[in-house]
Amino acid sequence: METSAGLEASNLATNTNSANAPIETDAVIIGAGPVGLFQVFELGLLEIKAHVIDSLPVVGGQCVELYPDKPIYDIPAVPVCTGQELTDNLLKQIEPFEPTFHLNQEVTVVEKREDGRFNVETSLGTRFITKTIFIAAGVGSFQPRTMKVDGIEQFESKQLFYRVKDPSRFHGKNLVICGGGDSALDWALNFVGKAESVILLHRREEFRAAPASVAKMKELCEEFEMQFLVGQVTGYESKDEQLSEIKVTGADGVTRRLPLDYLLVFFGLSPKLGPIAEWGLDIERKQLKVVDTEKFETNVPGIFAVGDINTYPGKKKLILSGFHEAALAAFGAAPYIFPEKKIHMQYTTTSPKLHKILGVETPVFD
Amino acid sequence: METSAGLEASNLATNTNSANAPIETDAVIIGAGPVGLFQVFELGLLEIKAHVIDSLPVVGGQCVELYPDKPIYDIPAVPVCTGQELTDNLLKQIEPFEPTFHLNQEVTVVEKREDGRFNVETSLGTRFITKTIFIAAGVGSFQPRTMKVDGIEQFESKQLFYRVKDPSRFHGKNLVICGGGDSALDWALNFVGKAESVILLHRREEFRAAPASVAKMKELCEEFEMQFLVGQVTGYESKDEQLSEIKVTGADGVTRRLPLDYLLVFFGLSPKLGPIAEWGLDIERKQLKVVDTEKFETNVPGIFAVGDINTYPGKKKLILSGFHEAALAAFGAAPYIFPEKKIHMQYTTTSPKLHKILGVETPVFD
Repeated sequence: METSAGLEASNLATNTNSANAPIETDAVIIGAGPVGLFQVFELGLLEIKAHVIDSLPVVGGQCVELYPDKPIYDIPAVPVCTGQELTDNLLKQIEPFEPTFHLNQEVTVVEKREDGRFNVETSLGTRFITKTIFIAAGVGSFQPRTMKVDGIEQFESKQLFYRVKDPSRFHGKNLVICGGGDSALDWALNFVGKAESVILLHRREEFRAAPASVAKMKELCEEFEMQFLVGQVTGYESKDEQLSEIKVTGADGVTRRLPLDYLLVFFGLSPKLGPIAEWGLDIERKQLKVVDTEKFETNVPGIFAVGDINTYPGKKKLILSGFHEAALAAFGAAPYIFPEKKIHMQYTTTSPKLHKILGVETPVFD
Repeated sequence: METSAGLEASNLATNTNSANAPIETDAVIIGAGPVGLFQVFELGLLEIKAHVIDSLPVVGGQCVELYPDKPIYDIPAVPVCTGQELTDNLLKQIEPFEPTFHLNQEVTVVEKREDGRFNVETSLGTRFITKTIFIAAGVGSFQPRTMKVDGIEQFESKQLFYRVKDPSRFHGKNLVICGGGDSALDWALNFVGKAESVILLHRREEFRAAPASVAKMKELCEEFEMQFLVGQVTGYESKDEQLSEIKVTGADGVTRRLPLDYLLVFFGLSPKLGPIAEWGLDIERKQLKVVDTEKFETNVPGIFAVGDINTYPGKKKLILSGFHEAALAAFGAAPYIFPEKKIHMQYTTTSPKLHKILGVETPVFD
C-alpha cells in the first residue's frame, strides 16, 4: 500500500526475528523523522555509524505522515519546501554514512546491560546491543486510530483489524471495511473478487482517498461487486464469543444490522508515546526531560533525546531546534563510543578529514 | 570595488550622519552574516521589524568574506551549498520582512537609556533608538590587517591608509600600494594617470587578484605608467614627523629605499571584537556569555547574543546552532517589544496568521 519513496532498498534491513543474533552497534536512533535523519549526519561526521528504527513503513516521520505535500517555510536557508522534499534532501545528505533502516517496527524494549551498553528490541523481534541511544521519536510512534465502540476491543487481532499483515486470511470471507482514506479504499478494491463479500463503510459521501480509487469503487458498486454504505458503527452482536454482526447507524438516523466475518478499520494514524514511558526516563507532560542543553542527554547516561520529544527551559518544537540538538547530542555521545579519543570540532568547509568522510574533494584555499 | 550581490538596493539605507534624527525601532541586529539574516526571519514571524548593521560593504559575513565559493556540507537539508548561495537563500527567505541594511559601518556606541531602550550609533553616524539588540557579530567585525613595522602606526590616517575613503586626496601624489589581492590591484590601476607615480609592492610574484587585473597591471608596467616590485616593507625614514621614505627588502635580500607621499596597504581583512568589548557585556575569551540557553540573552537585559560570538556550556560554533539560538532569542525578546501580548508559537506549515505575514497562501488540509 505504501512505498518507501527515496529510501535506498540496499539500506533497508529485511525483517529479522528474535532467533537471529542481536546487531552490535555504536548508536541506535529511534525515529526516522527529519531530526532522526539529521542525527545520522551529525554522528556520521564523528565516524559513528547508526541504525535507525521507525514504526512507520517509510522514513520522514510526521513530515511525511501529516504534511508530505504542504509547504514548510522556516527551515533556515530553505525558503520553502514540502515535508517530502525535506525528507528527500536529508536522505541525500546522509547518503555517505550508509545508515541501516529498520522500518514498520516499534521499539518495545530498552534495558541497560551490565557491560554499560543497552539491549534494544523491536516489535518485529529485531535486537540490538548498542553503546548509545538517540530518541528522536517526535510526538511518539504513529498508531492506528481505534474504533470507539464499547467492548469491541475484545475482538482485536481476531476479527477486528487495524492493519493487514496476511491478506489471504480474508479471502472467501464476508468483510466490512471502514474508512475514507487511501488505505480503506485500496484494501476494499484489493479484496473484491477474493473475499466472499466486501462492504465499504464511511461516515460521509466525501473521501480523502485518491479520486481514481473512489471512481473505481463506485464502478464496482454499480456492477454489484461490492457495496458502499454511509454510516458509523454504533454497536455489535456476538455469539459464542465471536463477533457476528455490527450495528451501523446511517445518515438517516436509522440503525441497521450487518452480519460479517471480519471488520477492517482504517481511520488513519495518531501518535502515542507508547513503550518509551516504560524505560525509566524522566518524563514531563509526555516529553523526555534532558539533564542539560549541553548534550541533550536524559537522566539515563547514554540515552539522548532530540527533537519534539524532549523538553527543557525555553524549548520550542521547531525542526531547526531538533537539528541543533542532534549536533550537540552527537558530541555528547562520542565519549561513550571513543572513550580514549579527544573529539575536536571541525568544519565541513575546511577539514580534509571531513571531506574524506563525506567522500568529497577538498577545495584549494589560497 | 565590491558589489552588494543579492541585496535589494531598495532596502539598503543611504549614508546618514549624526545630524539626522535617530531611527526608532524594535530591533537592531549587529552582523549581517547567516545568523544575523536568519534573526530577521525569526523576528519577522513574530511581527518584529529589524535594522541590520554590518561593517562589511556586503551581506553574508564570514561566509562571503572567507569562503564565498567553497562548499558547506552541514546545513541541515542542504546537502551542499557555497557561502554565497547560503547567503542568497537566506536573503530570499527574509524578503517578506523587508529588513533595512546599514552596511560598511561598525557599531561604535551602545548605551542604555533611562526609558529602558538603547542608543546605538555607527562609525558613519547612523543612530538608532531600539528596544532590543541582537549581536550576531560572528568572530567580530572584519578590520584591515595592519602592516607590522615598528612605529609606522604613527602615520595612520595621515600618510598610511588601509582604506580609501576620498580618492581625490591621492591625486598628483607619489603612492606606494602594498598587497596582492583585488583591493591592491584595483586601486593601483585606478590611480595610474591620476597620481604622480604608482608603485605596487607585493611579497611575491603570485597574486590573489583577478588574472585580468594582474595582466592589465603588467601591461601598464611595460608602458612605464606604474612600477611593480617584489618585496616587503621592513622600515621607514621620517623628516619633521612626516613619513619620507620606506625601506623595502626584496626577494634578493637587498634593502632599497623608496621615497613616497602616501602608503596604501591592502593586506585583507581579519576579525576583531572591537567596540563590543566596551558595552558592559560579560565576556569570556572574546565571546559574549549568555545568561541561559533559554533566550540567549546577555547579562544586559534586552541585549541578546547569537551565533559564533556567544558562549555557553556545550557551545559549538556551527551555523545551525546560531539558527536555533536566533529562534529562541526572538521569543525571548518579544516581551520587551509586546509587553502586553502573550506569544504563542505557531507553525509556518499550518498557521494562517504566519501565512499572511509571509505573504503566501494557506494550503487546504483535510
